[in-house]
Amino acid sequence: MRLLVLHGPNLSQLGTRDPTHYGTATLADAVAVVRAVHPDTDSAQYEDEGALVRRVHDARRDGTSAVICNAGALTHYSWALHDALELLEVPIVEVHLSQIHAREPFRHHSVVAPVADVSISGAGLVGYRLAAEAARALLGLESSSGEESSSGE
Amino acid sequence: MRLLVLHGPNLSQLGTRDPTHYGTATLADAVAVVRAVHPDTDSAQYEDEGALVRRVHDARRDGTSAVICNAGALTHYSWALHDALELLEVPIVEVHLSQIHAREPFRHHSVVAPVADVSISGAGLVGYRLAAEAARALLGLESSSGEESSSGE
Amino acid sequence: MRLLVLHGPNLSQLGTRDPTHYGTATLADAVAVVRAVHPDTDSAQYEDEGALVRRVHDARRDGTSAVICNAGALTHYSWALHDALELLEVPIVEVHLSQIHAREPFRHHSVVAPVADVSISGAGLVGYRLAAEAARALLGLESSSGEESSSGE
Amino acid sequence: MRLLVLHGPNLSQLGTRDPTHYGTATLADAVAVVRAVHPDTDSAQYEDEGALVRRVHDARRDGTSAVICNAGALTHYSWALHDALELLEVPIVEVHLSQIHAREPFRHHSVVAPVADVSISGAGLVGYRLAAEAARALLGLESSSGEESSSGE
Amino acid sequence: MRLLVLHGPNLSQLGTRDPTHYGTATLADAVAVVRAVHPDTDSAQYEDEGALVRRVHDARRDGTSAVICNAGALTHYSWALHDALELLEVPIVEVHLSQIHAREPFRHHSVVAPVADVSISGAGLVGYRLAAEAARALLGLESSSGEESSSGE
Amino acid sequence: MRLLVLHGPNLSQLGTRDPTHYGTATLADAVAVVRAVHPDTDSAQYEDEGALVRRVHDARRDGTSAVICNAGALTHYSWALHDALELLEVPIVEVHLSQIHAREPFRHHSVVAPVADVSISGAGLVGYRLAAEAARALLGLESSSGEESSSGE
Amino acid sequence: MRLLVLHGPNLSQLGTRDPTHYGTATLADAVAVVRAVHPDTDSAQYEDEGALVRRVHDARRDGTSAVICNAGALTHYSWALHDALELLEVPIVEVHLSQIHAREPFRHHSVVAPVADVSISGAGLVGYRLAAEAARALLGLESSSGEESSSGE
Amino acid sequence: MRLLVLHGPNLSQLGTRDPTHYGTATLADAVAVVRAVHPDTDSAQYEDEGALVRRVHDARRDGTSAVICNAGALTHYSWALHDALELLEVPIVEVHLSQIHAREPFRHHSVVAPVADVSISGAGLVGYRLAAEAARALLGLESSSGEESSSGE
Amino acid sequence: MRLLVLHGPNLSQLGTRDPTHYGTATLADAVAVVRAVHPDTDSAQYEDEGALVRRVHDARRDGTSAVICNAGALTHYSWALHDALELLEVPIVEVHLSQIHAREPFRHHSVVAPVADVSISGAGLVGYRLAAEAARALLGLESSSGEESSSGE
Amino acid sequence: MRLLVLHGPNLSQLGTRDPTHYGTATLADAVAVVRAVHPDTDSAQYEDEGALVRRVHDARRDGTSAVICNAGALTHYSWALHDALELLEVPIVEVHLSQIHAREPFRHHSVVAPVADVSISGAGLVGYRLAAEAARALLGLESSSGEESSSGE
Amino acid sequence: MRLLVLHGPNLSQLGTRDPTHYGTATLADAVAVVRAVHPDTDSAQYEDEGALVRRVHDARRDGTSAVICNAGALTHYSWALHDALELLEVPIVEVHLSQIHAREPFRHHSVVAPVADVSISGAGLVGYRLAAEAARALLGLESSSGEESSSGE
Amino acid sequence: MRLLVLHGPNLSQLGTRDPTHYGTATLADAVAVVRAVHPDTDSAQYEDEGALVRRVHDARRDGTSAVICNAGALTHYSWALHDALELLEVPIVEVHLSQIHAREPFRHHSVVAPVADVSISGAGLVGYRLAAEAARALLGLESSSGEESSSGE
Repeated sequence: MRLLVLHGPNLSQLGTRDPTHYGTATLADAVAVVRAVHPDTDSAQYEDEGALVRRVHDARRDGTSAVICNAGALTHYSWALHDALELLEVPIVEVHLSQIHAREPFRHHSVVAPVADVSISGAGLVGYRLAAEAARALLGLESSSGEESSSGE
Repeated sequence: MRLLVLHGPNLSQLGTRDPTHYGTATLADAVAVVRAVHPDTDSAQYEDEGALVRRVHDARRDGTSAVICNAGALTHYSWALHDALELLEVPIVEVHLSQIHAREPFRHHSVVAPVADVSISGAGLVGYRLAAEAARALLGLESSSGEESSSGE
Repeated sequence: MRLLVLHGPNLSQLGTRDPTHYGTATLADAVAVVRAVHPDTDSAQYEDEGALVRRVHDARRDGTSAVICNAGALTHYSWALHDALELLEVPIVEVHLSQIHAREPFRHHSVVAPVADVSISGAGLVGYRLAAEAARALLGLESSSGEESSSGE
Repeated sequence: MRLLVLHGPNLSQLGTRDPTHYGTATLADAVAVVRAVHPDTDSAQYEDEGALVRRVHDARRDGTSAVICNAGALTHYSWALHDALELLEVPIVEVHLSQIHAREPFRHHSVVAPVADVSISGAGLVGYRLAAEAARALLGLESSSGEESSSGE
Repeated sequence: MRLLVLHGPNLSQLGTRDPTHYGTATLADAVAVVRAVHPDTDSAQYEDEGALVRRVHDARRDGTSAVICNAGALTHYSWALHDALELLEVPIVEVHLSQIHAREPFRHHSVVAPVADVSISGAGLVGYRLAAEAARALLGLESSSGEESSSGE
Repeated sequence: MRLLVLHGPNLSQLGTRDPTHYGTATLADAVAVVRAVHPDTDSAQYEDEGALVRRVHDARRDGTSAVICNAGALTHYSWALHDALELLEVPIVEVHLSQIHAREPFRHHSVVAPVADVSISGAGLVGYRLAAEAARALLGLESSSGEESSSGE
Repeated sequence: MRLLVLHGPNLSQLGTRDPTHYGTATLADAVAVVRAVHPDTDSAQYEDEGALVRRVHDARRDGTSAVICNAGALTHYSWALHDALELLEVPIVEVHLSQIHAREPFRHHSVVAPVADVSISGAGLVGYRLAAEAARALLGLESSSGEESSSGE
Repeated sequence: MRLLVLHGPNLSQLGTRDPTHYGTATLADAVAVVRAVHPDTDSAQYEDEGALVRRVHDARRDGTSAVICNAGALTHYSWALHDALELLEVPIVEVHLSQIHAREPFRHHSVVAPVADVSISGAGLVGYRLAAEAARALLGLESSSGEESSSGE
Repeated sequence: MRLLVLHGPNLSQLGTRDPTHYGTATLADAVAVVRAVHPDTDSAQYEDEGALVRRVHDARRDGTSAVICNAGALTHYSWALHDALELLEVPIVEVHLSQIHAREPFRHHSVVAPVADVSISGAGLVGYRLAAEAARALLGLESSSGEESSSGE
Repeated sequence: MRLLVLHGPNLSQLGTRDPTHYGTATLADAVAVVRAVHPDTDSAQYEDEGALVRRVHDARRDGTSAVICNAGALTHYSWALHDALELLEVPIVEVHLSQIHAREPFRHHSVVAPVADVSISGAGLVGYRLAAEAARALLGLESSSGEESSSGE
Repeated sequence: MRLLVLHGPNLSQLGTRDPTHYGTATLADAVAVVRAVHPDTDSAQYEDEGALVRRVHDARRDGTSAVICNAGALTHYSWALHDALELLEVPIVEVHLSQIHAREPFRHHSVVAPVADVSISGAGLVGYRLAAEAARALLGLESSSGEESSSGE
Repeated sequence: MRLLVLHGPNLSQLGTRDPTHYGTATLADAVAVVRAVHPDTDSAQYEDEGALVRRVHDARRDGTSAVICNAGALTHYSWALHDALELLEVPIVEVHLSQIHAREPFRHHSVVAPVADVSISGAGLVGYRLAAEAARALLGLESSSGEESSSGE
């Protein structure tokens, strides 16, 4: 079962700012975190909404079993990405490095969330490990006996 | 290092509805999931806002190292809980069983999120495992070399 | 079949203001009005949201057949009470002594109404008699032949 | 003392949809429910706002003692009906078959409520019985000793 | 199969303004355009909301197979018309001579659209031909092999 | 006179979902419906806003006489597409397969409509036939004598 | 030159409330005030929006030179009346007995004002005299030399 | 009995724009129109909010019997002027040369209206004559027998 | 005459944060400031809304002459506390240590203010001295000759 | 150390209304109350926003140690005054005679509050004594041992 | 051709704060920057809205060819200044030292911008040089061949 | 030091509309205006958001010293471009040919402005000369002695 890690605009620049203040982790590191949990993992990063949409369409046919998606700023207005993800009938995990609910108001609303099974924000690179585990659980790969699905807030 | 798992109103009722439709997982199961990751874990559930606030105050003095909090419906309006958590100077992970961003509009906004380091929603019981791992990472207990902190959306 | 009459904050004070202007009816009178219609009736009043939530949870297991609820000011913001009532699978009748839609703007919106089968406001103590009859009808105890259920605004 | 039961647009169609799903109760049944409580009852249904307004004006002069009003969709925007009812100095009871507060947002706000003494929604045909009793109580016809008027939410 | 073309307030005045600037087409011309596509067509125009509602009710019983509706300004606030059309279980096509989405803000929102199968605006009299064809297609009278129903925005 | 049929993101996926529920019509079918009405028709589909904008610019110089445009989710926020279409001085017909005014709130507002001469939504593939006819009428190719342009809602 | 004084819903009831508190002036008195200024004056009052619209249409053909309009509560939502008045190419004076800008919020916005040349509110019956004079001035009947038209707020 | 005609900012410039397009009437003409109706009339124009406020205070002590006020753009935000006029216990007539309700949105709301007995807009210089007559009527100087005060919209 | 100083959630934690940055003043100090002005002073602090409401009810019967209330975060949403204070017929002084109008938006609106005679914010512990003096003045204990009550903003 | 008491528009009129209803206290009395607490006090009242701004500028250079400011209605919209006070680097105490949070909605928001250290409203003339004491405390003149600065709501 | 540089409230204080942090540039320096570009330049600064309005009126008659305006906080609410500038038929350049679009929300909206030909913000004193050049270009004094006017965003 | 002039969607079409009405200036002309001021200037225009984002990323590494950016319609919604520009640590000047604050409401808000040092709109091609000079000043290339940086609105 293959995971696809999708990144949106500006995430290509991770790790390129002053390492003293911002750390040295890069997008490759983020993908490596996912691969450490689930080796069969593809990844892609695009600055273009259209390219993201096309990659999601491809995932409908290339054996992708689940998607981990950090759409960058497109998270907040790309209804085209929302529609593409809605068409894709595999589990989707939304992840953000920072706690988007504690930043500028425009980042408090996600148009990806309504079509994502799980949302994780604020855990930095660790969030990618959590996302990989969430994706695996959604695929039934590692739900332990005590973690049977449940309802409630 | 001790974790505290805090639950708000109505979460006491987990697993008490028709098990055919809603599953049999209970709050004890949720806490067990956390303990499986981090054995030194306390837990508490309250229907009262005031009791939650008092428990958060106690956590300032009883050696609690991090909090995992599912405040139930209080998530959406309890500024008193927000203020209590803000006073508490340990890592906080917000968790919700369901994807609150895809439910009724009143559940789209969390007053806990601005004071939580990490937010996780939609992963069911698995979300508690992820929250436990996030809490451990925030405490520096298991950040792997590839997961160094980073910035970006 | 047992009814439960639930009252929220400040309703304990009914009848304690200057009787010349505000009348002498008390909460006990309100409950008596319900009992006159349906003798098998329990009642409770709480100033605390959490106590109300707990009492609603108890009603899931103590043989309560229907609830008549005047949540006082919690009517307008207690999503925790909303969630508790939603879990309770018996008929619910919301009642208010005053016409809340003709008072201050904050009283025009009820978070209880979406989970109540019937809402009654403005009829004073008589509203409790109406609520008791509505509860009985919802329980199939006294729907006359001409009152078969129907749809329409 | 004569009651007037007033119905607004589309309520003429009650009972005309597929009886398997929607029941067979008609507007005549609704009026019969009121008459069973208070025999001296007139009724009228209009699709036109203007006709409703005229009938309310007539009620100022024809000995009407109280009005039971289900204005259909006009409930939500007819300020002309609001003004007519405000001129009429007799008790007014607003009734809706369905729980309007749990339907589409446009039905959550009533322009009739601010000029109605009592509002009842969600009780189906039984709501008309309750409305008749409320009207009688407002007229002083059946307020039992325990139902003396009171104040509070 | 009979079509009903319904017009709301002020559309009686089509063609009565200075013909140099506004053209000479009348409501009769609009109906003729529909009849040219589907000869078995009735039509009615009313200035009154109530009369429109009544005509929609009659359409439930007089063999009307589909409705083409230009409700004029009532398009923007007549929830009574919305409710009447919702009761009517035949295809409904909303049509407007002008492009209402490019005029004053109050014309941008239609309360008819949520209960209409198809909406057409801006095509002038030609819009009536399109509406007639849409109604015929909804009735299965002329869906060509290549026009099989589909989903998507 | 050449028509251009333009499609935005995700419309490439038409007909690729479970045919039992969603039908088998594809984008090629939609274009074929237009060609059946007006054989001299070009078409293009893009997932990218920028590619759509470029194609609209090309249409200024390649002999395009009118545009039929279904911009998918870009309909609701692409002011860049709005500006491109505004520069293009040929008739524009907006078309949507579904009734966008009865779906999620974000789909109720179109930024394409203010620069479109005609808008059609909800007619499925038939909507493309109607759009083709509307485009031809706007070009003066088939306005029948009774369809002279007129004003009014 | 003939004036038309138009009244909307509920204005038929002027003078019918307790004369001690509300005065005895009737609608006939209001019309008489206009006639005292301009004898050639017709008048009409309707409870129905449609009847008002029809009367405005008639005014296009019956020699009406100007309209004085008090639409009652329809002032605040009848876009149909707005459209009818917009079609009528004679001067229009809006008048209200009370100061509508100092009453309930729903009365602060008039949909008649954008199509009225002059608006007058708060002057009671005297407002009709002012309206009649305004109408005459708009018709050029009594503009004194010092009252030449001017611009400015 | 003395009238005071008060003008706010920019009204000093009346009549100073290109007379071909804007007319030649000046503020002096406006005051002359009032004096023709009521010779005992004072007037003042200020560009400053503070000066207007001071002049209103003076009017409390200098024998002013009524005020006619065109506050220019201050109409829309000067709560200080609102408070000054509220303190002044004489009749106030608000007047605007243009129909402010049909201009830019910021001009649709007046903070003067809630403290004015009468509001008149859109009648140009004639509006000053109407305002003078309204002021006289409010002072009881010329209310004819048929113009007795009344209530209603 | 006895004063009651009431504190809401989280105020129990005053003085428990790093004293270098936040000072060492505690709630006991705040009460002592009031007692220095008015020795006959009771005080209470609760984390629970319900407990606050109950204490306010008790104040109706225990000889409390005035209340000084800092409701903490409940200030911003506890309509139940608002209702309890409204029932209490003694002077109420609202006090906040910080200038709430200059902090997060949710703190700019107080539901306590409409039922408080006096509001004081931003003065730190000194605010309690001012509140005590205000309460005494409201009780008529120390209004000096020059401080006679007056009106105005 | 010199205090400056600043008053905005209309406060010059204090005490000039019917003394039976409004009391006889004047602005001079208000200033006297401050002087009784702190004799070295200057005062000024202006109807003009510009004059207030200039006086605040002067306060930067004339030895003013703190300002007590009641800006009247300018409180609610004068961003110019806000900017002037922000430039002034001395303590600022905002005071209002009435409880502005319980009056008209436009008075609930203060643009002065964000730049004031302390806000006091509703205490009438006593509020000036409290304001004087608050100013002195901010200047360190009389903070008693028990009133050490603290943080919290 | 003469330029007029107009400054609103608080700009008189430029350069008077701690020069280490805020720089020493004064309003005279700002005017000098303009004069360096265009020697024939007048300037004025007022704290009063009314004085600004009067100066704009004077500019209609004193040979002013263009205006450079920094209205300070009046930028955000002075519709009186908006109206004065609208009357003035010469080019207007709006300038702000700081980037107002990146400061407090109330500074994001300018009522001067709709009547200004050019807006410049954020360039500090350099902004005045740019404004002077813009004014000269608007007057046709230095538009180089390559700078011919054009349209587009 | 190299400048980069960036253009967004539709600006490629400058100068291609009817030259009689819209002028003949092209994007090349705009760039030439900048080069006339600062010869070392690169430029790029893209219809795609993603291409703009990539070009901004490249500017982080190719020696670009400052950016002049006219993002076309993306100005109003491209948070992705906002994030890219925020990452770029060189001065940014936003420029628009037209006065965007005086056009349609959607153009009044810029998401580029919060990350731009300087914003200029409405000056046509001249705006590019001003932008070039602003960029040079931000780089310290030509700040004359009188133009030292300052603070204030």
